[in-house]
Amino acid sequence: MTDTTTTEHQPAAAPRIEINAALVEQRIMTLAEIGRCEDTGVCRATFTPEWVEAQELLRTWFEAAGMTARYDPVGSLWGRYEGTEGGKVIASGSHVDSQLPGGRYDGALGIISALTAAETLYRQFGPPRRPLEVVSFCEEEGSAFGGARFWGSRAVTGRITAEDLTTIKATWGETIGDTMRRLGFRADEFASARRDDLDVFIELHIEQGPILESEGISVGVVNVINGSHGYTVTVTGQANHAGARPMDMRRDPMVGAAEMILAVNTNALAMGRPAVSTVGHITCIPNAGPIIPESVTFSIDCRHNDPAQLEALVQAHRDAVEEIAARRNLSVSYRERPMLAPCVCDPVVVSTLEQAAVRQGIPALTMPSGALHDTQRMSEVARVAMLFVQSRDGRSHTPAEFTSIPHAVDGIRVLADALYHLAWGG
Amino acid sequence: MTDTTTTEHQPAAAPRIEINAALVEQRIMTLAEIGRCEDTGVCRATFTPEWVEAQELLRTWFEAAGMTARYDPVGSLWGRYEGTEGGKVIASGSHVDSQLPGGRYDGALGIISALTAAETLYRQFGPPRRPLEVVSFCEEEGSAFGGARFWGSRAVTGRITAEDLTTIKATWGETIGDTMRRLGFRADEFASARRDDLDVFIELHIEQGPILESEGISVGVVNVINGSHGYTVTVTGQANHAGARPMDMRRDPMVGAAEMILAVNTNALAMGRPAVSTVGHITCIPNAGPIIPESVTFSIDCRHNDPAQLEALVQAHRDAVEEIAARRNLSVSYRERPMLAPCVCDPVVVSTLEQAAVRQGIPALTMPSGALHDTQRMSEVARVAMLFVQSRDGRSHTPAEFTSIPHAVDGIRVLADALYHLAWGG
Repeated sequence: MTDTTTTEHQPAAAPRIEINAALVEQRIMTLAEIGRCEDTGVCRATFTPEWVEAQELLRTWFEAAGMTARYDPVGSLWGRYEGTEGGKVIASGSHVDSQLPGGRYDGALGIISALTAAETLYRQFGPPRRPLEVVSFCEEEGSAFGGARFWGSRAVTGRITAEDLTTIKATWGETIGDTMRRLGFRADEFASARRDDLDVFIELHIEQGPILESEGISVGVVNVINGSHGYTVTVTGQANHAGARPMDMRRDPMVGAAEMILAVNTNALAMGRPAVSTVGHITCIPNAGPIIPESVTFSIDCRHNDPAQLEALVQAHRDAVEEIAARRNLSVSYRERPMLAPCVCDPVVVSTLEQAAVRQGIPALTMPSGALHDTQRMSEVARVAMLFVQSRDGRSHTPAEFTSIPHAVDGIRVLADALYHLAWGG
Repeated sequence: MTDTTTTEHQPAAAPRIEINAALVEQRIMTLAEIGRCEDTGVCRATFTPEWVEAQELLRTWFEAAGMTARYDPVGSLWGRYEGTEGGKVIASGSHVDSQLPGGRYDGALGIISALTAAETLYRQFGPPRRPLEVVSFCEEEGSAFGGARFWGSRAVTGRITAEDLTTIKATWGETIGDTMRRLGFRADEFASARRDDLDVFIELHIEQGPILESEGISVGVVNVINGSHGYTVTVTGQANHAGARPMDMRRDPMVGAAEMILAVNTNALAMGRPAVSTVGHITCIPNAGPIIPESVTFSIDCRHNDPAQLEALVQAHRDAVEEIAARRNLSVSYRERPMLAPCVCDPVVVSTLEQAAVRQGIPALTMPSGALHDTQRMSEVARVAMLFVQSRDGRSHTPAEFTSIPHAVDGIRVLADALYHLAWGG
């Protein structure tokens, strides 16, 4: 663990914050019933009936907690406590859509945590001095609209265009603009979802990785979110008969791709943590057992929290792919996704979270996030940081995903302490 | 070229056999119009309207050549010249169904060659002493009915069961039994398609490989057809988040499969010609860029003309797969296809073809077949051998497949000389 440090400040005066663990568990399980699949999983794609039902349930919870609740034009749900002294908004939340199937915790726990923390503080200390909002973002995963990942946080940061409404389509073929209008959202007013009144955004999320568990710590304070670069590589050779073409006269893109995939793995291992590179998608043409393929296409997903190292990793992969293709007389082409730069969290907000953990007597590990989050987008309009809570076996994007209630409650206590500090001035 | 030899016998007295090159070309191009696709390709799946039209055209050609023509119960078309002295049948032919898309020559050329050779001999020398048949087999490729590869030659050799009629289904869902009945074939009499009256079967086919072209020779005499062993390997690891899971804590089946695919290639290269091994098919679950896969499944197709070497090759792959899986903490499972033993052609028939080439003054290379053919099945009920004609660039199973008319005519002259020798006793 070279890139994580344990918080060692002395505790300051801490408010006594009691989080109702039974309520947290009840909220997790109630929300998980909506779109429940594969017993412990959820299938809740944005703008489907399950997603609408989940957002509406959250709206009733927000209102029962004394918040005013509203949907913004693109479908994110916001609950708000007004601040007695006004000023810019302190916000916390996550997303309610899931992978297909996903688990109960990814996204959902961040909304439940923000709601539960804010409501607990509100009932104990009354209205905050500064406005406090809880958000349930739409389409973080991109599982219904592949081109609309981070749709809710993109709207808040002004990263949606009118063209997106007609070019981005659902897995069922409908444009995202038509889908939003059909559901009563104000698709054409997407620009007004932009916010310039936010001060701080904090997202609590399951770690989705194995580090907290391996360290025996329940809570992580995220100080940097890894940048990512994704692209697909198409390797083209020459299709031929698998029996009649001697091995030494082949131009086989499958063998070339295999060597490239190994090289990508080796490069990331050689760079060391937190460098990661993953080939998660592969297709082959014509994909028939007795035919040497014509072409093989595979994805490379690279992440690092240092922009220079990320560039170096991407370049190392590119060099390996080019060398292998040339040596094997194969041609290659690339389709790139824009590079998402690493997001360095606001040091003051990070420090606030670290100190909140110390005040609550909860050991916390300051660590990077390997996964991407709405927080990365929100950093364009607010000071941001994240809290992680321990994932069992580091599993995520599967019904096997699990976070224990004690670990979740530890995270909520740290979040509540920080929100108290930020919004009540405690 | 360690496994091929050039025929060096002295020529004996040769009949003067004139093959009408213009007729050969016209027949190739006329047949290629039926199911024509992608300009120079054909899409002629067994029991489709295109296939029926092609068989019916061949029937008119067989009858115009003075043969009696009949469909056997499973759909293969046979044309016959009776022999003045009776005895067991000399037969030649190939298949009229194609890959989707395939080329104009794979299969079709073997039927046109047998027809043209037999007709030429019949017009020049009158009826043969021994019965001579020309056959157009059905479903050699298995492109309509995956489970019915070699359907026509399986029927002739008694390798069809009643169960096959209901369990083998078309790509469009219909059972092969229902399809045959709908077209008027006598599916339930499949057993009577079996032949015990065949003496010799010779199949002329395009090489589908690059060897004849690289040697500058138009005709090959096939003395052995490689055996094959096919199976799929499923490598299972653990799906995890591509960002949050450190490289050193992964169980990534994609990386394991890549290393296995490279090993399969290396093993076959190390064994040398004619060993081949091909990974032509790959699938991944869940096959999403930002998720480390749960499992990757790929095919291995191994061929060799020596049964012991084929076994050794299969074992080398198995050893590599097991070693890699164990080292990477992955699990593997296999799904096997029955091993098809190498088919050693009848030495007398091979010699007959070699001598025919010498008599016709056409250099011929004695060589193995890497591809599988109906001939392999027919070896169970007849003495067999094959003739290859040169393929351009070794291309096959693609509209780019091409064999020149001079090369085809060279092959037909050798075939005709051999049929003259066998059926007319010349």
